[in-house]
Amino acid sequence: MNEIHGLAVHAAGAQLLSYKYDAGEVQANEVEVRISHCGVCHSDVHLIDNDWGLSKYPFIPGHEIVGTVTAVGSGVTDRTVGERVGIGWQADSCGICEWCRQGDEHLCAKSQPTCVGRNGGYADAIRVNAKFAIPVPKVLESENVAPLLCGGITVYSPLRNYGVRPSSRVGVIGIGGLGHMGLQFAKAFGAEVTAFSTSKDKEEEAKSLGAHHFVNTRDTGALKKIAGSFDFLLSTVSADQDWQAYVNALRPKGTICIVGAAPSPIQIQAFSLIAGQKAISGSPTGSPRDLHEMLDVAARHNVRAITERFAMAKANDAVAKVKKNQVRYRAVLAN
Amino acid sequence: MNEIHGLAVHAAGAQLLSYKYDAGEVQANEVEVRISHCGVCHSDVHLIDNDWGLSKYPFIPGHEIVGTVTAVGSGVTDRTVGERVGIGWQADSCGICEWCRQGDEHLCAKSQPTCVGRNGGYADAIRVNAKFAIPVPKVLESENVAPLLCGGITVYSPLRNYGVRPSSRVGVIGIGGLGHMGLQFAKAFGAEVTAFSTSKDKEEEAKSLGAHHFVNTRDTGALKKIAGSFDFLLSTVSADQDWQAYVNALRPKGTICIVGAAPSPIQIQAFSLIAGQKAISGSPTGSPRDLHEMLDVAARHNVRAITERFAMAKANDAVAKVKKNQVRYRAVLAN
Repeated sequence: MNEIHGLAVHAAGAQLLSYKYDAGEVQANEVEVRISHCGVCHSDVHLIDNDWGLSKYPFIPGHEIVGTVTAVGSGVTDRTVGERVGIGWQADSCGICEWCRQGDEHLCAKSQPTCVGRNGGYADAIRVNAKFAIPVPKVLESENVAPLLCGGITVYSPLRNYGVRPSSRVGVIGIGGLGHMGLQFAKAFGAEVTAFSTSKDKEEEAKSLGAHHFVNTRDTGALKKIAGSFDFLLSTVSADQDWQAYVNALRPKGTICIVGAAPSPIQIQAFSLIAGQKAISGSPTGSPRDLHEMLDVAARHNVRAITERFAMAKANDAVAKVKKNQVRYRAVLAN
Repeated sequence: MNEIHGLAVHAAGAQLLSYKYDAGEVQANEVEVRISHCGVCHSDVHLIDNDWGLSKYPFIPGHEIVGTVTAVGSGVTDRTVGERVGIGWQADSCGICEWCRQGDEHLCAKSQPTCVGRNGGYADAIRVNAKFAIPVPKVLESENVAPLLCGGITVYSPLRNYGVRPSSRVGVIGIGGLGHMGLQFAKAFGAEVTAFSTSKDKEEEAKSLGAHHFVNTRDTGALKKIAGSFDFLLSTVSADQDWQAYVNALRPKGTICIVGAAPSPIQIQAFSLIAGQKAISGSPTGSPRDLHEMLDVAARHNVRAITERFAMAKANDAVAKVKKNQVRYRAVLAN
């Protein structure tokens, strides 16, 4: 399967068109994966439109991939042909730097994203470094697991790495593509969970996903009422927020972690961080270590992305709908 | 010694005048301390001037106290008459909340600062909850240890609590009353230490205090040159900074901790926190647990505040000099 068939964009903002490329021989550290599903992430839209100035055309988007291993390189000892695996934002890293050595491959300066400077998952197959092909537990459905590989890990990793535990009071800001998974994972950590949303009509669903409380952030004074309430706030929205109000909503030692990039600079009074020993932080995707763990947790706690399915051939429709924020909550392409 | 003699301010910004108050009987959980030394901290100046709107006049400033225990309450089992102790920013806390239970008494909502709503250390004696009177190791000089009790713990606690270790690359921003102790403690943690200062003439002293490198922040492009270099930056200055440049100076997983409150809001691009999994945080004073530990570390590593000594009767001169930032680096009153 050296020739891989997919859907590529040939210029910023263009439609996806049929495209094939020669992947060459399977390298020693690689696996080849026959793709069954691929999520459509907002990052794909940004790459298609070259919003980040990183895109080189033509390229095949897609970095929330589930499929079956069809070949393994000569040096691969931990993956086998026939195994179902997931692939997320990252396809390779240097393997020898301090970040790779300590299991933080996502922070490697030579990290290779799955579909930046490479061809991604809107295709029939892909090749990646075997380390970044993570076994998917049997009980998980491929369609529902695909969005976990980027969106899910983006919310799972900070909950894990900031030590959320059953005594924690956690807020998830924004109940959309990321947030609806954030609620489920926060519940899996045993926390008391609050959903923050501008959409009042999401209350019932947020609660069914694990939220114990719901705050309609359009209510005047809603954020004032909850001052000093949270150990951890996970902001999944990419719109500007009243960051100072959220800092004030933290308890002592509390942290806001931002995983959705707001356009304007965050503005915070230093004193409000000092007095309560608070922090504001960011988190990108997660490491292979976290991906392995997240999929085990998802299996144990029945965490699943709520998906809308599109045939791979209808990828342009899926991208258009994601761009308009009309998908509740994640679009997935199926071969 | 129920009648305590000290120096009080009677109105915002006024001179210190002779003053006495009746401290009543020693309470069950209290110690009485005969004061030998008291540091003059910038916070005292802010309280004298009522910059924070917290001051009630008349009051005796002073919260960097060293002295000898002269009486212990009936419930005190861990302090003895004749023992030398230090007292910092905090004189009491509720003792029963979750923060007190876990050794973070400085975060207690009912924390009682030593000289806010109480009379402090510009006096011959003081009474505090025994928990906040910390034994001072014999090898430390009282004059040099007094400023550790507030200024020192303010820089020690974040180095400790953010896990600075021998592999860490630490920067101390601002080489003054706080920073000159920050350099010494950062060195004690085994870190590679860089001093940041606007005063080129502090380079030699900064290096003698533990800095391996010196960055003159007035040099154009100085901060750009060190992008991606630091695991931990401790900002001790109370002036506005180019916070984005300092975030960019962090390595992946790096943290800026602010202990000096800048007047304008901090402005940071969210994306710069997300990509490198970085954080910006604040830290107030420290807990009794950290104070005990800091004094042991100071004894072991010969950490000492560089002081200028004033007789207690010359406290007004000391306050005036501190206000003009003319003390290198800490003023200490001696009885």
